[in-house]
Amino acid sequence: MPSLFTKIINGEIPCYKIAEDENNLAFLDIFPLKKGHVLVVPKLEVDQLFDLPEQNYLNLLAFSKKISITLKQIIPCNRISMHVVGLEVPHAHIHLIPINTINDCNFANEKLKFTNEEFKALADEISKKIKL
Amino acid sequence: MPSLFTKIINGEIPCYKIAEDENNLAFLDIFPLKKGHVLVVPKLEVDQLFDLPEQNYLNLLAFSKKISITLKQIIPCNRISMHVVGLEVPHAHIHLIPINTINDCNFANEKLKFTNEEFKALADEISKKIKL
Repeated sequence: MPSLFTKIINGEIPCYKIAEDENNLAFLDIFPLKKGHVLVVPKLEVDQLFDLPEQNYLNLLAFSKKISITLKQIIPCNRISMHVVGLEVPHAHIHLIPINTINDCNFANEKLKFTNEEFKALADEISKKIKL
Repeated sequence: MPSLFTKIINGEIPCYKIAEDENNLAFLDIFPLKKGHVLVVPKLEVDQLFDLPEQNYLNLLAFSKKISITLKQIIPCNRISMHVVGLEVPHAHIHLIPINTINDCNFANEKLKFTNEEFKALADEISKKIKL
């Protein structure tokens, strides 16, 4: 059965997309720890990040860097943290989170809530500024 | 003033080294969240990961992947998580942490304690198995 992220990649489940290229997709996490919390996923479905073939892995990381640079320009923050945990969805993914303190990227924290309109406006704002 | 990690890279401060190449160094975090918690640092001193020149960034991530694959073979765990936070030392670094649950990589947790001999034995075990 395809993973949740493969369904998003295939358009079967909607997302607040911010960028896409041949091999990767980035969209807003709908359970964000902070405003601008983004998920980056490779289109190739593998469970663990380090299972990706070398070139797919490096493409994903290069893509994530571009997203992070744009995020930092849009969301006021000290830096963009990066996390690969992957215990919940068996499809490798990278969390990019705008943070000011270590507690901002504590996955035990309660997730923030935004309206559909707020998610959409933020995704639009980020996607317009990303240079792939 | 050189960063803590530059002092480690230059050998001015000791570390439990597990791997090194021309551009990168990996060593055990002496304040580990889990056994086998590793820090990977680029020899080029920049504050934020995404400030690294593209090739240095990709080299660092390729190096980290090799370390992670070996760590997974040695430390019993579900997977190796990866975190870039960097609020404490202004020299880009990647945390690699063997985890079974999301709480295993909660940076608010109390750090584990090991003796010098335990750290040294673990670093030796990992370093012998890494293929760069």
